[in-house]
This record gives sequence, C-alpha cells and structure tokens, in this order.
Amino acid sequence: MSEALVVFTPSGRRGRFPVGTPLLEAARALGVDIDSVCGGRGLCGRCQVDLCEGHFAKHGVESRADHLSATSEAEQHWERRRGPLEPGRRLSCSTQLLGDAVIDVPPSSQVHRQVVRKRAEVLDIVLDPVVRLYYVEVAPPDLGVPASDLRRLKEALASQWQLEGLESDIRVVQQLQRALRQGQWRVTVAVHDDRRLIAVWPGFQEQVYGMAVDVGSTTLAAHLCHLQTGEVVASAGRMNPQIRFGEDLMSRVSFIMMNPGGDRTLTDSVRAGLNALTVELAADVGVDVDAILEATFVGNPIMHSLVFGIDPVELGGAPFALASDEAIDGLWATEMGLVIHPNARVYGLPCIAGHVGADTAGVILSETPYLSEDLMLLVDVGTNAEIVLGNRHRLLACSSPTGPAFEGAQISSGQRAAPGAIERVRIDPETLEPRFKVIGCDAWSDEAAFAETVGAGGVTGICGSGIIEVIAEMYLAGILDRDGVIRGSLAERSPRVVADGRTFAYVLHRDATRTVTVTQGDIRAVQLAKAALYAGIRLLMEQLGVERVDRIRLAGAFGAHIDVKYAMILGLVPDCDLDRVTSAGNAAGSGARIALLSRKARREIETVVRRVEKVETATEPRFQEHFVAAMAIPHRHDPFPRLRERVTLPLDVPSDNAARRPARRRRRASSDLPR
Amino acid sequence: MSEALVVFTPSGRRGRFPVGTPLLEAARALGVDIDSVCGGRGLCGRCQVDLCEGHFAKHGVESRADHLSATSEAEQHWERRRGPLEPGRRLSCSTQLLGDAVIDVPPSSQVHRQVVRKRAEVLDIVLDPVVRLYYVEVAPPDLGVPASDLRRLKEALASQWQLEGLESDIRVVQQLQRALRQGQWRVTVAVHDDRRLIAVWPGFQEQVYGMAVDVGSTTLAAHLCHLQTGEVVASAGRMNPQIRFGEDLMSRVSFIMMNPGGDRTLTDSVRAGLNALTVELAADVGVDVDAILEATFVGNPIMHSLVFGIDPVELGGAPFALASDEAIDGLWATEMGLVIHPNARVYGLPCIAGHVGADTAGVILSETPYLSEDLMLLVDVGTNAEIVLGNRHRLLACSSPTGPAFEGAQISSGQRAAPGAIERVRIDPETLEPRFKVIGCDAWSDEAAFAETVGAGGVTGICGSGIIEVIAEMYLAGILDRDGVIRGSLAERSPRVVADGRTFAYVLHRDATRTVTVTQGDIRAVQLAKAALYAGIRLLMEQLGVERVDRIRLAGAFGAHIDVKYAMILGLVPDCDLDRVTSAGNAAGSGARIALLSRKARREIETVVRRVEKVETATEPRFQEHFVAAMAIPHRHDPFPRLRERVTLPLDVPSDNAARRPARRRRRASSDLPR
Repeated sequence: MSEALVVFTPSGRRGRFPVGTPLLEAARALGVDIDSVCGGRGLCGRCQVDLCEGHFAKHGVESRADHLSATSEAEQHWERRRGPLEPGRRLSCSTQLLGDAVIDVPPSSQVHRQVVRKRAEVLDIVLDPVVRLYYVEVAPPDLGVPASDLRRLKEALASQWQLEGLESDIRVVQQLQRALRQGQWRVTVAVHDDRRLIAVWPGFQEQVYGMAVDVGSTTLAAHLCHLQTGEVVASAGRMNPQIRFGEDLMSRVSFIMMNPGGDRTLTDSVRAGLNALTVELAADVGVDVDAILEATFVGNPIMHSLVFGIDPVELGGAPFALASDEAIDGLWATEMGLVIHPNARVYGLPCIAGHVGADTAGVILSETPYLSEDLMLLVDVGTNAEIVLGNRHRLLACSSPTGPAFEGAQISSGQRAAPGAIERVRIDPETLEPRFKVIGCDAWSDEAAFAETVGAGGVTGICGSGIIEVIAEMYLAGILDRDGVIRGSLAERSPRVVADGRTFAYVLHRDATRTVTVTQGDIRAVQLAKAALYAGIRLLMEQLGVERVDRIRLAGAFGAHIDVKYAMILGLVPDCDLDRVTSAGNAAGSGARIALLSRKARREIETVVRRVEKVETATEPRFQEHFVAAMAIPHRHDPFPRLRERVTLPLDVPSDNAARRPARRRRRASSDLPR
Repeated sequence: MSEALVVFTPSGRRGRFPVGTPLLEAARALGVDIDSVCGGRGLCGRCQVDLCEGHFAKHGVESRADHLSATSEAEQHWERRRGPLEPGRRLSCSTQLLGDAVIDVPPSSQVHRQVVRKRAEVLDIVLDPVVRLYYVEVAPPDLGVPASDLRRLKEALASQWQLEGLESDIRVVQQLQRALRQGQWRVTVAVHDDRRLIAVWPGFQEQVYGMAVDVGSTTLAAHLCHLQTGEVVASAGRMNPQIRFGEDLMSRVSFIMMNPGGDRTLTDSVRAGLNALTVELAADVGVDVDAILEATFVGNPIMHSLVFGIDPVELGGAPFALASDEAIDGLWATEMGLVIHPNARVYGLPCIAGHVGADTAGVILSETPYLSEDLMLLVDVGTNAEIVLGNRHRLLACSSPTGPAFEGAQISSGQRAAPGAIERVRIDPETLEPRFKVIGCDAWSDEAAFAETVGAGGVTGICGSGIIEVIAEMYLAGILDRDGVIRGSLAERSPRVVADGRTFAYVLHRDATRTVTVTQGDIRAVQLAKAALYAGIRLLMEQLGVERVDRIRLAGAFGAHIDVKYAMILGLVPDCDLDRVTSAGNAAGSGARIALLSRKARREIETVVRRVEKVETATEPRFQEHFVAAMAIPHRHDPFPRLRERVTLPLDVPSDNAARRPARRRRRASSDLPR
C-alpha cells in the first residue's frame, strides 16, 4: 500500500497521504490546528497527538498502533530532556503514517485552544495572542549571494512558516546578527500580530509572557500569563505609590493643578510602581522580564490617563473631556519606561467617557453583557461607582459619585479591609446586642475562640463590607428608621444606643483600648453613597425603560466581600432574585487578561464601547430626584418583592418623629451631593 | 445666469458651477491640484491663482476680471499681514465665480509641484512629502455628547479634509487637550503618510521641515528642507566626531572589536554630531528643531549601521553580511535620540550589500540610471569606491578597495583639501618645470599675484585632486613611464628629478619652510588606488558584457574637484567622450533629499535596489587580473580612442628598464591589495 488514510479528531478532517508522511505534515495539509514552535524539529513538544486504536466503522478505518512509525529518535531525545510522554502520545512531527489511522489532537496541542475560565457561565477565552514564537533555521551568509541576515531570516520564515511580508523593529535588526551567530543560524523570533518581528533569541526559546494590569487608584494588580498556553503563572498586587499625592482621585488631580509638572510626577510614580510590581511578579516564578512581550492595561479614566502620560486635569471638571476614547494600541514599552522587553507592545483598553474608564471596558469584556439576552446590571464600586446596564440589544453606562464611604473612609471607625476590621455583623432584634467577625479571625465575637484568635491588635475598626452589614442589621433590628435615623428612644432599652451630641450612636464594640461606634454621621455618609449608586442605576433603568433587571454582577473588591443580601437591604442595587446577584471578582482585571490573550477580544471591545450610550449623571436633573428618593432604606422606588421573599423588612414601623424628618433630609441630601 | 463655466489651466479641467461658488471649492470638485493648509480660511495664502483674461475660443470662454468677485476682506487681511499679492493673483478660497473664467494654477500653488533641481538632465522631483499639515476647527466638548477630544478632532479632519481612519501617536494624545484649549479649538496637525497624526499645534502653523543627511566617514552633511515647498532653507556640514576613534572605517571597526560596547560609543558619537549639526542648521535660519518632522539618512554600510545602532563588526570581515538590506522606515526620532520633534519619523535608504551602502542607493536615486537608455557608470570615491554600472535594463554594483590615497592620505606630502593644498598642476614637457594652483588662491604659481595671495601659510601639501593631476602631468611630460616608474635618467636633465633612496622623486615645490615632492611611493599608492577602482569598473563591464560606457558620473567631493581629463589619463575610469564624463556633486545627499520630499521616490529606490546585481570584488578572481592590468598608465585594457582625440598619450615611449619592472610590480600589486 503506497497511501494511507488519516482522520483527525475532533475536527474530522481526513485525507490520504503517501506512507511515510509525518503526521504533522498531513495535519498541516488538511488545515488541522496543531501547534508547533520549533517547526517540526522535535524540540518544543507542542505537537503531541494521541492514536485512537480500534475499528472506526464511521470513518471506515482500522486504526492500529503499528500503523504509525516506531518511537523516533527525536521522541526519545525529547523524553530524555522533558520527561516521558503520556501513554499513547506521540510527537506528530516525528511520527510517520504507515497505515490507516485515527489521530486525536488534544486541546493542549491546538493553537487556538480554549483557556478555561473559572466561572462557567461566561464564554471561555479562545487563545489568540498577539505575539507568537517561531523557531527557524536560517541559511548562513554566502559571499557569493550578498543577501542580508534579515533577508535570509525572512526567507526562512516564509519557507518554514509561510510568514510573508514581515516588517521588523529596529531592535531586531540591531540584535539579529549576534543572535544568528550565537545560535549557529538557529533562532527563535517573536512575531507581533502576524506582521512584525519584535524579538529574536539565539536557538530554541519557548518562554513568552504577557502582563494584564489593572491600575487602580489604590491598588495596582497584575497577572503574568504565558502567551503560548494562556496560563496565569503569577498574580500580584501592590499599593499604587501615587497614594502619597492624595488618597482619592480628586486630591491627585488637585495636586496636579497646584504643581506645574505634577502630571509627570504622578505618571512617573505609577510607572515606578508598575515596574516594581513587574519585577516582583517575574522574580516570583523565575521569569526574565525580557520574556514579557505584551502588556494590557485597564484603569479608571484618571489612572488610565496618568499611566499613558496624559494630563488628567480636564477630567477634574465639566465637561470632563477625555483626551481619547480609543484603545491605545501597539505602543512600545520603552515609550512608557516599562522594564519589560523593550520591543514589547502595550495595549490600553479604551475609556468610554470622562467618568467611565477602561476598567469598565474591561468589566464589559469580561462579563459580555453585549452577548446576553438577559438584562444585566454591572456595578463596579470604587470612589466612583461605574455602572453598566443592558444586553445584546442596547448598553448604557454611567458613573455615580459614591465617594469613599464604601471603602471605609469618612466613617468614624472606618478602616481599610485589613486584619482587625469588622466585616460581618448580626444584631439581635430583641436585645439589640451585636455579634461580629473580624478579618483574620474565623470565630464570631460571641464564641469562646474569638478572644484567643482575634490577635494582639484586637478589633481595630469597621471595613467597607462591615459598615454595610451593621447599618442593614441596625435597620432590620429596628434601631434605624427608614430614613436612616437612629431611634434615640431605644437608649432607654439598651446601653448600645447612646447619645452623641444632638444625635445618637450605636456601640458595636468596646474594650479596654477602643470603642467602635456607628454614628448618625456614619449612617448619613453611607446613605449618601448608596443613594448616589442607586440613583445612577435608576437613571440607566429609566433611560432603558425597564423596571427590573435579570442579573446583577458586582465587580471589584467591594463586590467580592459584601453580602449581597445586605447590599439589597440597604438599597444599593435594585430588587432582584438574590441568587442572581453575584460577585464578578476583579472583572476589570479579567478584561485586561482576555485582551492580553485574544486579538479578537480587542477588536470586540473596541467595537462594543463605541455603541455604549454614555449617560452623564452630573447634568441629568432626574439623577437628583432619584438620589433624594434613594436616601431612604432600602429606597422609595419599588416594593422589593424579591427581597421580601427572603427577608422581613421593617418598612412600616414608624420613626421617632416621622412628620418632621423627611423634608429636612431632602434639602440636606441635595446640597450634600458630592461634586 | 445662475451657473458659470470655469476652466483651470494647466490641467484643462472644466465644469459649470453656481454663481458665487468659491474658486477653491470648484477646483476641489474638479480634482484640480490646489494647495491649502488652512482649509479655505484665508490664512495660509497657498491657494493663489491667476485669472487669465480674454476670449478663449478653444474653451469657448470669455474670461473677464469682473467674472470674479471683488477683492475680499480675507484677501485684504492677508495682504496686510503678508504683503501685497502679485498683480492678478487671487486667493482662490476667498474669490467667487460670478461668470465664465479661465483660471491658471501657478506651480507654487500646486500640492504636487515639481521642485526644480539645478541639473537639467535629471528629472525634477515631484513634491510628495510624507508629512503634511492640516489646519482644522474642532467642536468644543459637550457634556451631553461625551466624545473625546481626539474623536472630535478626527471628525473635524474627516469633514473638513476628508481624512478618514487616522491613527494617532500617543504624544499627540498627550498634547492634544492643551493644544485645543490654547488654540481655542483651532489647531494644526501633522499627518504622516496620510494615515497617522504625529503632531499638533495650537492655532495655525505652516512651518514643517525635514532633514536629509549624508553620514560620511569624515563629514556629516545635511540639508534642511521646507516640506511644504520643497525648498532647501539651509545646508551645513561638520566633521564626523567618530574620527577620534579612527580616521578610516576599518580602524573604527577595529576599535569596536577591541572595546566591548565600542559600537554603542561610536553610535552615540555620530548621533551627538548629528544633533550638533541639526541645532546649527535650525538656528541658522531661525527654525525650531521641533518643527523638523522628518529625516532621511544615507551612508556607507558601516556609517549606516552605526547611525541606526547596529554593530558593524560583521562588515569588517568576510562574508561581509549586512544586518538588513531593507529601507529603515518610520522609526521614531526618539529611538535614535535625535533632537528634532520627538514624533518625527526617520527613513534610512536601503544598503545594497556589505560594501555597497545606502549612499550608493542615494546616488542611484539621484542619478536614475534605472530610467536611462544610455549605459551609465556612476563612481563614488571615498576610502572605498562604490561603482554602479547599468541602465534601465540591468544594474550592477560593487565596491572597490581604493584605500585613502585619493583623499590625500598615504601620500608623502598629501593633505586634506584645505587652503594651501596644491589642487591643479601643469608640467612643461620641455623644461620639466611645474606650475600649480593652491586652494584659496586664484593665481597660478608662476603668476606675479601668486606670492601675494597664497597667504601666510604658503603651500602646505597636495590634496586628492592635485595628486591625480601631478602624476598625470608627470606621465604626459615623460617623467613617468607607463608602469609608473620615475625615469631616473632625467635627473641629469632637470633638478626637479632627484634621487630618493633607491628610487627617484619629483620636486613639485620648494620654499624656505617646505619641500613638496612626489615620491615613487606616492605614485605607487595612487596606482594601487586607481587600479582597484578601474578593476572594479572593468569587472562590472565584463559581467555586463560591454566594452564601453555612454556616460560617466563622478559623485562626491572627489568627483567634484578632479579634472576628468586627468582622471582618464591616469586610467581611473574607462575611455569615454570627455564631455560625457561629469561631476554628480553630492549625489548621495541629493538622493537623501529626494527621498525626503517624495514618497514615490522611496518606493522606487526600495524596488530598484532589489534588482541591483551585487558583484563581490573580494572573491572574484578576475578582479585580481584586472587589477594587475590596471596598474599601468592609463591601463592595459583598451587603446583609449576617445581620450586620444583630446590628448597625446606617450604610450609608446619605452621605460628606463622595460624588461625587468613589470614582473616585479605584478607580484607586489597582488600582495599589496588592501583587505
């Protein structure tokens, strides 16, 4: 028999080839997706396949082990270097077809494999990185044929990899001659977007990484991913060093306004932080920073501006004009002073509007509401809350000025989420006695183990999720009325309710060194924040003409830590089935990672953000009205049917002085509106 | 009449337009090429046209002054700022068509005007610069419509200039907001290659420059050109500061080989020199270096490598592999550390082979042998001679190792071309007495005025063109035999011929402080150089299968200063009609200037160099044979019929010792061959 039939699964592609044809060659001829960096030289081991033994009636094939050539020298060599192949696995480049066979290409050998994400409900990423590696053997120079090293490299890439018409970075030209000679005319090149040579190494090289970075006002977070496999090899975060120029965004913008060149100072500061983070990430897993060839960035509009060297002052006041609402594409890492490979390219996801940043673009890319039939509400709470509402038909976005109360700031006993901070609270409606949990200790405060494990620091304050819970529990226990006023009459019943000047406070914890109370001012700060958030959501719902949403996704650290039930009791989000309100984790960062691994995703988010309808809360008169109505607990917009299925809300208990309060509060609410 | 006919000359385009249509608008509608930077706002004055008055039977038009609107306010305003328009001239943007008219578009108003070059035989450059300016009025930001500043700029460029889908440099994004606000929503942008925004200025701006640079081993030379007009506004040269690392190319390569990082040192050195030259050029004419948005470079392969940061060591030995033989395109000026606008782009003409550089590509672009039916020989003499032979059918190139003798080095009394250097020589064949001229003095040495004007420094040596003349004159006067040997027998007849060890020398000049002689060694050095040059030419002629050339162009300083008759008597170039042997001036630099002003020329030279056949003299055995035969004066290849029409050559006078010399010289010649 001079020809044999081969069938590749799962694609089902089939064809007849002369006996002796390497499997990889047959696969290529049939357009079957099998990865290879070394181009069939038995070096990279990416082209592994499985023989399916047996009689396959469907295909008309009797597939047998002896229909493939015996274990080759290349395979033995590979196994000596890299450990044994799994049973039945072959390197398709070094295995020849001797008779009919059915060959399975496992996902790990596919170029466009799917990278499985942890959350099952979202589409997996189809790996399609911008940077790919190619190992190539180049003809040595010949005095008689004076073609340059670059030309011979390109000829080799064309004949060995069918890569035609490549452009080349100057640094590749600068490094090419040494690499070729060190590698004895064998080099690995990195090709960007199928069209540009951006790096060259002597010999065989298969390490190529990318970084996905979420530039937060407080925290810089990054994932280091292997671009060939899509795997996250390391993740890390560190403080944004800009914090010393101001805790929140507006104080950093003020710093710039008051200090000529201050934008440059803040840009240098955040870039220094990014470089420190990069070095740490790479060192953690023993990766050379020079092997990082791609980086993607998300951030709110001001962080995005500063990272890319754009003065953000225009974002500090109306009309909040962005310099650019396009993706930043193909920027050289050197232009940003990053410590990764100097030819690495940087991609910045697009900002959407003056208050809706590339972080929101990242959330959209990660959560894909634009593919959803369900109406999705995405909320990313920071100093501002960025809100996206919509589905595959229409998408709206806005930003709401929640202020920092949700992060524990402007709260009398507030603090960052750190050991010692109260994060969970329950209040007995009978006794009004609380019990709570603090970060870093598994026991509740009324359990015996608590005193032992709470640590030397003891209880230090309340973090963002704790303040939500304690206020919601105070409301459920009847300590607060619906307007958020502490009922002073309860002071007679419980020592926990105490006078505090002209108002009252609730004593959550008291020990020898510290008293943690919730004051009327604290409650007012949270009310302002949650009213701003809810008013933004309400505004989008109104613009879309809907009264309810199908799913709510809470992004960011806040979303990850709060109990959604309490968020809903306080009226941060609209009424919804509680089990359809979930945390999206660091969705902005996930968006950066998706953009890192998939070119298609980049084009997708660039298109999607263009059709996002931007709603400006600052100029929308209805926002003020929604805001006032949302000061109540939960708020005055609907009867919360879904929440009431799970929780008994004390909506109808009259307040201490129901007649007087509301009017006064309404006035105050308007004038207290941030910005 | 509600419509009028307008005919534009010289294009002949015609059309009917409603009365009141501005001429510029009619021209645009008809596709007539009229320049405008300000977009018809009467600011730039580039759209000037002339009314042709009279009856034009051919066009069927009666063209009268009152068929155009009266002088407009914009025109008066422009004249107040910029001086009166020429009689009959109008700004076509501010002049309306009231009746039939014939309108002439003068060359200065055409975008694609021709830039007239001084030499008439070569095609003029059609101006088509890579960078163009556009003045644009941008909508202010609107809180209700949150489009970024960049998006509104692009929308304005699309509607006002039909520029769609532009990309943008990050620095434009960084500078855009300030420029828009400073310019009160009016800015001028620079667009690179019709597709990328590379600069933005507040308000109206019409100054945009480019630099064309010839990076020589000895001299850096640059032209500063206005990109909108093509005009050379300044030219300057300065020493290549690399000279302190070695006079000639090979000693610089040796420096690199012996000093790790030496390539970086030499790159920094030449770039520092380029920056000093740039600052000087710009200051000369009061141009801001930031207004220089484009630069083009030519240079021999080693200079080209060093300017672009490529280690040239591979060019120091066989097989002389170039890193790249492609054009270097679109490199950011910042990547080279140039002091021009940070977003300026750099273009490097392609090198052709390890010994045939981008300077030769410049010569080819300037001399256009690839368009010629005549067979052209182009010779650019430096330390190496780069030689191009061919016509529109075929082009060959090689480099010949002439060594530095033609530059006055390795000559006992040799010196650079500078005041005091002998550059012209005549010898009386009867008396053997010389007369000469020195640089910086108009009188011949036998004229009364000479002593007065030769200057305090007196006669200091012989420069490259002087050594050619004196040796040729010695030959014509019978002092030298055909083998280049000084006839010692003449010492009896003239005190000018003196013994010099075992050989003889000719005393060209003697005064109180200095004796300028031509030694046998000097003659040998020039013979080696000219034999190498001629052997290279001969090799190309042989490969092309031709025995004569139609035209010879001598490029570079050497070509500009030598008398072609003497070059031919010494046999530097093949026999040719003397009046068809001409200087091409700094043809390499002209090539850089052409590439600066014309995108089409860039594509042209990139294509042409690919079909140049490279001939490697070092490995071609025939080169050695030609070399030996070319040691004779003129050489032993042909009977010089054309030269003999003009000059009586003493070809048949026997030498002092004809039998012995040739064999000895042949051995010596081979072993003395440089490299």
